[in-house]
Amino acid sequence: MSSAQLQLSVLVSEHARYGHHPLYSEIVHRAHKFGTAGASVFRGVEGFGHSQHVHGERLLDLSSHLPVLVVIVDTEPRVREFLNQLADVTPLAMLVTTSSVEVLSPLVEEPS
Amino acid sequence: MSSAQLQLSVLVSEHARYGHHPLYSEIVHRAHKFGTAGASVFRGVEGFGHSQHVHGERLLDLSSHLPVLVVIVDTEPRVREFLNQLADVTPLAMLVTTSSVEVLSPLVEEPS
Amino acid sequence: MSSAQLQLSVLVSEHARYGHHPLYSEIVHRAHKFGTAGASVFRGVEGFGHSQHVHGERLLDLSSHLPVLVVIVDTEPRVREFLNQLADVTPLAMLVTTSSVEVLSPLVEEPS
Repeated sequence: MSSAQLQLSVLVSEHARYGHHPLYSEIVHRAHKFGTAGASVFRGVEGFGHSQHVHGERLLDLSSHLPVLVVIVDTEPRVREFLNQLADVTPLAMLVTTSSVEVLSPLVEEPS
Repeated sequence: MSSAQLQLSVLVSEHARYGHHPLYSEIVHRAHKFGTAGASVFRGVEGFGHSQHVHGERLLDLSSHLPVLVVIVDTEPRVREFLNQLADVTPLAMLVTTSSVEVLSPLVEEPS
Repeated sequence: MSSAQLQLSVLVSEHARYGHHPLYSEIVHRAHKFGTAGASVFRGVEGFGHSQHVHGERLLDLSSHLPVLVVIVDTEPRVREFLNQLADVTPLAMLVTTSSVEVLSPLVEEPS
């Protein structure tokens, strides 16, 4: 028995900020508030990439910025709904992807 | 040429223990004994989640526990078989998922 | 709106070298030169695996070597083309996989 769900991966620069705190903390905070089953943050040791600013087309060179990965797994409808709540945050990310996963544990009871 | 295989991802709290050692070490130890091609452990820097105890329905708040991710890639039958051997361990995990990957290297010779 | 792309994951030993520098740095360097949108490197804290030498069938026991993961996301044709340029590097890797992802951001403009 398993459950088809969606893994949401958000890659940001460790230096990217939202207000007064790191962007990845903002994402974790919103995930917790939204009620995802969990969120995990992994820090990279090397990398490069680009990030678009919210206001404008200018590309930010992140060659000296280390990547930080936020991973969340939930049902597809809930990931889609959570992404709506990240609409102002995702343009600040280096990369936002989803991928299909089978969740083997913990298995959520279907509401009856 | 590539080979369709399964990636097994087991997310545990760094503080979760099995007997006298960390839960993630128990999983790596069993994977080695089982004979998976490899196992890799990545430590998170932030996160939250829940874990069910084996005995009971009580949820353990892991908000102060950092996540640790164990990743194993092998053929689907072998991952399924290995999961059977983790039956007493997976209820202690925060999240257990599988996902489809194409293995490009190393390519395993078909037994003739 | 999203774009179906390919995630390339290359797992190497942190001690694996290419010329005078670490193998994972060689991969990141080539990805940058090739022009992938980005590359991220994550260092594991535990693991085991095997790696084949380029010249010969001998297996290198990496039980004491920590794993390092390089992750790249790009369009399938570009990942395939980049893999051709890694032909001399992938036999040194512990594991090379691709998997399907949906890229939600940044969305690349179709060339007109």
